[in-house]
Order: sequence, then C-alpha cells, then structure tokens
Amino acid sequence: MLVLISLSARSQTKEVVVKEFKVNPRRIDQRLTELAQSGRQPNGQTVRVAFTPADIQGRAYFIGLMKKAGLSVSVDHAGNIIGKRKGKNPAKKPIAFGSHIDMVPDGGKYDGAVGSVGALEVIEVLNENNIITQHPLEVIIFADEEGGTIGSSAIVRPFSSQSLKELSQSGLTYYQGIKAIGGNPDSLNLLVRKKGDLAAFIELHIEQGAILEKENTQIGIVEGIVGIERWDVTIEGVANHAGTTPMNMRNDALLAAAKLILAINETVTGVEGRQVGTVGKVEAQPGAYNVIPDKVILGMELRDLSDEKIFQLFREVERRAKDIATSSGTKISFKQRTATARPSLAAKLIQDNIEKSAKTLGYSYKYMQSGAGHDSQNMALIAPMGMIFIPSVGGISHSPKEFTSANDVVNGVSILLQTIMAIDKE
Amino acid sequence: MLVLISLSARSQTKEVVVKEFKVNPRRIDQRLTELAQSGRQPNGQTVRVAFTPADIQGRAYFIGLMKKAGLSVSVDHAGNIIGKRKGKNPAKKPIAFGSHIDMVPDGGKYDGAVGSVGALEVIEVLNENNIITQHPLEVIIFADEEGGTIGSSAIVRPFSSQSLKELSQSGLTYYQGIKAIGGNPDSLNLLVRKKGDLAAFIELHIEQGAILEKENTQIGIVEGIVGIERWDVTIEGVANHAGTTPMNMRNDALLAAAKLILAINETVTGVEGRQVGTVGKVEAQPGAYNVIPDKVILGMELRDLSDEKIFQLFREVERRAKDIATSSGTKISFKQRTATARPSLAAKLIQDNIEKSAKTLGYSYKYMQSGAGHDSQNMALIAPMGMIFIPSVGGISHSPKEFTSANDVVNGVSILLQTIMAIDKE
Repeated sequence: MLVLISLSARSQTKEVVVKEFKVNPRRIDQRLTELAQSGRQPNGQTVRVAFTPADIQGRAYFIGLMKKAGLSVSVDHAGNIIGKRKGKNPAKKPIAFGSHIDMVPDGGKYDGAVGSVGALEVIEVLNENNIITQHPLEVIIFADEEGGTIGSSAIVRPFSSQSLKELSQSGLTYYQGIKAIGGNPDSLNLLVRKKGDLAAFIELHIEQGAILEKENTQIGIVEGIVGIERWDVTIEGVANHAGTTPMNMRNDALLAAAKLILAINETVTGVEGRQVGTVGKVEAQPGAYNVIPDKVILGMELRDLSDEKIFQLFREVERRAKDIATSSGTKISFKQRTATARPSLAAKLIQDNIEKSAKTLGYSYKYMQSGAGHDSQNMALIAPMGMIFIPSVGGISHSPKEFTSANDVVNGVSILLQTIMAIDKE
Repeated sequence: MLVLISLSARSQTKEVVVKEFKVNPRRIDQRLTELAQSGRQPNGQTVRVAFTPADIQGRAYFIGLMKKAGLSVSVDHAGNIIGKRKGKNPAKKPIAFGSHIDMVPDGGKYDGAVGSVGALEVIEVLNENNIITQHPLEVIIFADEEGGTIGSSAIVRPFSSQSLKELSQSGLTYYQGIKAIGGNPDSLNLLVRKKGDLAAFIELHIEQGAILEKENTQIGIVEGIVGIERWDVTIEGVANHAGTTPMNMRNDALLAAAKLILAINETVTGVEGRQVGTVGKVEAQPGAYNVIPDKVILGMELRDLSDEKIFQLFREVERRAKDIATSSGTKISFKQRTATARPSLAAKLIQDNIEKSAKTLGYSYKYMQSGAGHDSQNMALIAPMGMIFIPSVGGISHSPKEFTSANDVVNGVSILLQTIMAIDKE
C-alpha cells in the first residue's frame, strides 16, 4: 500500500511517498528537540558528555520513551540501554538497531541522537501499524560512544580492569562512569555477546562529511568503516643558535618535519582511492624564535577500508622519510600507537537491502565509506552490520554548528524502517 | 721588542710570539675557573643568571680583582661595573672594553666571561709593563646581558619605568634585580651617555658559531652585529574531521604551514649572502590526531647586517605566502614583533686595527658578522665599536657544553691588548 503523507519539516513542507509505513516527522523533530534539553546551556548549546548528570538525564528521558513505546527496557553491565520487542518467531535471532545519545564536549545535537530517535521511531511506526515482526527487535543505545565506543566494545570483547581505571571525558574513571549510569563494571566480562547472537545490526547516522551534501544525494549506503592507524613521528636534528649558525650548517628538525608533512600528503593523494592521511599534531622543541629546533614530534594518522592499503601507504611514507632524513641530516623514527581501529566491512546483504529501500522510496543514494568510527564497527564483529548515512550540512560535525535538515532525518528514518522490514522478511 | 714566552695552556704547551706585551695564560685560565665557582652546582655546571645570588657573588669576585689591579671601581645606576684607569692625556676620551659575567640559565663558562677576564688581563699586562696609555681606559662589565643587554641598553637610551616592572630571568623584576646588584633603578635616566663620550668600545667574545673552527681560523674580525626581525605568522584553515573529510575538500592549516616553512627556507637560501632565517616555533590547533588543524602559528625570524635585505627577504616570504594561501584555501597573516634589534656596524678603524694586530701576532683571521646580539651593538650607538671573535668548539653556545681552548682564549686576549694599544697610539 502506498501512503501519501504531508511532511511538515522545520524549513519546508513537501509530499513524500513512503511505502507501506509512515514515519512521523513532527514526533522525530520534537524528540530531537526534547533530547537536546538534557545538558542545554544558557547559550543554547547542549553539552552532554557520557557519565555526566546531563547524560544521565538524557538517558532517563529516553528510557521513558522506550517504555512508553512498550519496549522491555534494561541497562546492561556496561550501561548500554537495551529495549526489546518480541517477534512472532522465537527461533529467530533479534534484529538490533540504534546509536548513542552521549556527545563530544563541544558537539552538536544530531551525531548519535538521529540514530537513537530514529530507532525508537521505527518501534512507534510498527506499534501504530500493529505489526509484529518475525524477528525479535532490539533498540540499543550505546554507552559513551564518544569516549571510544566504550559500550559497544564491552559487548564484543573483554574489558581490562586496567582500562577501567583510566579517566573518561567526564572526569570520572570508566569504572565510576559506568556505575553512574547504572552499569555494573565489576561484571563486564559477563556481558560479552557471541558471534551469531544477532541477526543484524543497523545504525542510522549523520555522514559527518560533506560528500552527500556536495553531490546532492539523500542516502549514503555505507560499505564499511575505515581502519585507523596512528603514528608518533619523531624528527631529531641539532639545536643551535639561530643567529650564528649559517644556513648550510644546520640540522633543522622543523624544516625536515615540514618536508615530511608534504611527503605524507603527496603519498596519500598520489594513489587512487578514498584513503585519507592527516598530520593533526606538531610540537617543536625547544620552541624559541632564536633556537633551531632539535626535536619535532608529529601525530600522523592514515585511514582506509583496507588494512593492506594503510600499511602500503605507510611504507611509502617511511621510504620518503628516509630520504628526507638523509638530505637534512636528521633522524626520523616512527612509533605506531596502539589505540587504533581495524577496518570494518558492512554486510553485503544489508547494503543490498538499503539500496532496495532507497529505490522503493525514490531516494537518491550513493555507496560510500565511513571515515569516522562508530559503534557499528564493534557490532560487525558479532553480527552482519549495516549503516545508513544522511547529509551533514557543510560536512560539519563534532561542533555546535552540526546540522541535518528535518527532511533528511525523515528520509533516513524511513530507510531504516524499510530496511529492517526487508531483512525481517528474508 | 719581540718576546718569546712559553704558554702553558690546559691542553698543550706551545711557543707563541707576542709583540711588545705578554699576556699571562695561567692567570687567564685560573680566573675563568675561579669565576665559574660562583654558581657552581654539585654536577659541575655553573648557573649564574643575572641578579641571582650567584651573579652577586661573581660580581664581588670580579670587583675584588679589578680593585687589586688598581682600577677605580664604581657601579653605575644600571648595575654595570666600571673600572677606570687614568691616561697620560686628560683631553682624550676613554677607550672602553669589556663584556658581561651573567649567564643564560643553562649556559657555559665562556660566553661573556672570556671578554670580561680578557679585559682585566689587558689592565694587568699594562700594569706589569708600567705602561700608561694616552687615553684613559675603562673596563665595563655589563649588567644582565643575557636578559636582553639590559646594562648596555641603559647606558645608551632611556629606560621606561614600565619595562622595569617586567620579570627578569631571575624571577625578580628588573627594578628589583638592578637594586639587588647595587644599581639605582630610580635614577636610570641620569646614566645615559652621549655620543662621543668614549673614543672606542671593544669587546672580545667567543664566536658562538662554528665558522672559525670549521675554517681553522684563529681570529674573527666582526664587521657588525646583525639586525633581528621577528614575526608571528598565523595560518588559518578550517578544522574538520580527519576521517570524513576527503583529501580534496580540506583547508589544512598545518599542510599550508609546512609549505610556508619550506618557502621561508628557500627564500633565505635563494640569494647570495650570510643572512639567516629560522622558524623556531610552531603551534597547531586544535592539535589532535583526528582533527584537521584550523590554525597554526609560526615564530619566524630573519637576521642580516642590512635592514634593507631583511625586509626584502620578508617581502618575498609574504609574496610566497600569498600563493600558498590561495592554493591551499587558507589565510596567512604576519604580525611583526617589537622586540627586535637594528643591525649594528663595527667601526672601520677598529676593524683595521684588529687586522693589523692579527698580522703582527701572526694569527689567521677572517672578517665575519655576529649572528648573535651583544652589548657592543648598544655601545655602537655612542662610540666607534669593534668586536674580536675566537672559535667555539662545535659552534656550541648557551649550553654547558660550550668550550673554547685555552690557546684560543690567549690569542683573543692578545689581540684585544694589541688593538687597544694600536688605537691608543692613533
């Protein structure tokens, strides 16, 4: 059945064709606005870092909505909120979907919130249409995504007691933080879910890049989440008096570092593909106008969907660094950091269903990679994973200026709903 | 008369021909060692920052030596130590010479000390040979050279009461510091000496660069002290997610800064001459692995004996910065700093006399510029100025590793004595 509904979005009103099920644009918009009240500052910005009172308030608001929607809500040992809805066929594994409601310290109100409110909207629409799916459904709101996908990590792998003692962005340790939101950090290892426990995990999220907007495309079908490898690069020269040392007698660590920054950029842009490479950190010692720097430390990262390509690029960077070190009389060394992420591929079946849904609903779409990390990359370790992207205006994210139009949010939620229904039928 | 004397230097013994007057290598070496006792730490290093108890102790030691050498010693309002010796002809203006005994926080025992002990040695040799010069003589030990040539600045220009309130490296304000060493900061303006008050000012100093050592040359005849101009360069791009922003959609401030660092180096090395240019400071914001930097601030300085050349180089840097800003989608702006130095030229007559002295004593010599600042650059404003350089091993200075051989020190003192005698005869 085709239903024509009128979408009264903030900026405009238009007719949208939604097949079989209609999402409620006003409800979605209202809930995003209400959620942003938790942590709202006098200047209008929302600050809702995981484990803080604002996060706890937002979680209480969301748990209230989930219960009102008839979900059976629990908080797991890691503090993830899980809302369960029974299916017709108890032999089937649950289809899970959701996102997170915690924010980076200076963030916006769409990252995470759209996927969370969108997941709940799917339940509301099913309720309104009296539909019981074959599979059980699970809405998951992950704990502390922005602090390093803590909640979803705890679902898929054991957590060391050492890392629980580290400080989270809230100022509390992870141990204290998980306790503050109703988790049980002493029992984290009991939480680990096995591969095959879920039929699928699907996350709707804002793109956090400008590709969809620039290409005027409504839906991004995520092929995978890039792997991230980081290195601290140390360039060692000789500190010397910047007045008395002739130009041809210098071993200037910062000059060599500048050459390396360009070489990294040339290496990353010199081959086909969507890989990215960034030098985001630089520190020069001793750091005075009148002293030639003897030591520079750069923070470099490389991202791609292929691990192999990341290390291929790194070897080329290493090769060029060797040449730069030789020609500049410096020493360049690379130390790989441990806090990195392996590439995570979306399940082909879910990608296909997202594409079919986009075609059914008449939305333009594009296959793309996620350059940012998400809870989905953990969930991919135990279940077929899929992600749906919607445009971010100007590509801005992790900023109060983050914005996605109400129409784009509604499009994304409609695709999420359609995709879940399609998977449920298979 | 030619006198052959045996020089027992620390490392070796050799025969040196000194015309007419002999300096005493053992006395010079002993006094350098004794001076280094003031501020000597358990690890053997000497820490003698201006205005500290170590500085006050070193000054007392030096004043004692000056008095023993028959000088009429006073401390002026700025804390400069002045030791006067009468000349035969009261109508003649004094020939002044000297240096400083204060040190940078992590410095060595030759910078300043060699010129101070050397100046006193000149007096000792004159005493031993019963010579009264035509001109009166003045040995000047300047206060707080390393804090910005404070004592010599006060001699040649008025001092603002505002700048006296600033903190010196000792932790005291300049006002407190000058008071601590027996000066009278309330009367600084009475101190200003007029152009023509002195017949000459001559300073012996270690090179603080590696040119003399590398070229195996004994004496540097300083043509002038370079001017120093400094700029803070701000490169503004757009902060963005390092994972989700494709390489061709970035406005990376650090990448642009790297290009500019290379352009500055190319500009400075691209023309003939002894100019130097350094980027010694860099700061990137926000400074995270996963954020493309939106703001980089560089600290750049240019030095040359010609102001015109410094600004010619700067205009070329500006031109290249404009191109880089355009091609990288960034904004680059330059803010000139006020704490800079004008170039200061040595008097031709004194340079000639240093050369004649080197020829007389049979020392190899080289005309060169001083890339570092010295009290002499202030004194040049009121008197014909000259500087004598001796080699610094490895070009190392402002470091506990600073070293000049005893032979080189003796050579320098001999040239200082010879030059003063030559000027006195003219």
